[in-house]
Amino acid sequence: MDHEESGKLCPRVQAAFELLSKKWTGLILHQLLEGECSFSDLERAVPALSSRMLALRIKELEAAGLVRRTVAAGPPIRVTYRLTEKGRALEPAMRGIEEWAQAWT
Amino acid sequence: MDHEESGKLCPRVQAAFELLSKKWTGLILHQLLEGECSFSDLERAVPALSSRMLALRIKELEAAGLVRRTVAAGPPIRVTYRLTEKGRALEPAMRGIEEWAQAWT
Repeated sequence: MDHEESGKLCPRVQAAFELLSKKWTGLILHQLLEGECSFSDLERAVPALSSRMLALRIKELEAAGLVRRTVAAGPPIRVTYRLTEKGRALEPAMRGIEEWAQAWT
Repeated sequence: MDHEESGKLCPRVQAAFELLSKKWTGLILHQLLEGECSFSDLERAVPALSSRMLALRIKELEAAGLVRRTVAAGPPIRVTYRLTEKGRALEPAMRGIEEWAQAWT
């Protein structure tokens, strides 16, 4: 990648790092990598996280196009969350940072 | 990685993402991946960045153990910056996020 290209890419890379640097976002994405989750599945997976904060994080991930919310007609109405293709595509990069953090920090 | 492990790793991964989400940090690390740089080399490589901000970013990277400053006795005294082993180890993870940002954002 030449300098001009990396200059154009820079704000987008930075935005990706900003999103992933938010508290709990990594753990939520990890849980969703295992498959579709309900809100309660996610609450159970990250017990230290309040429902309010979990709802906020999910909204951020939806806004970034990484998570898709699905409502299945009930009764009972069932709301589930799953990664989009864009969200799943983050997996190798996330693992890369995790491996680095595990080895070096 | 089981849940307990990923819970322990989470704050360290988050800290790594926070560091890398700072404006210009990615471009500075990129330049240093090419090899040792003087302050002016870095200024030339990232022209939009003020000297004050560049000095701050370098100090953050030194504090994180990613960059090492070397002073060679002069005259003229020559100050150079290079990546530590920990800094170089970030390369594949950074490339991973860049490839994702390029493909998906």
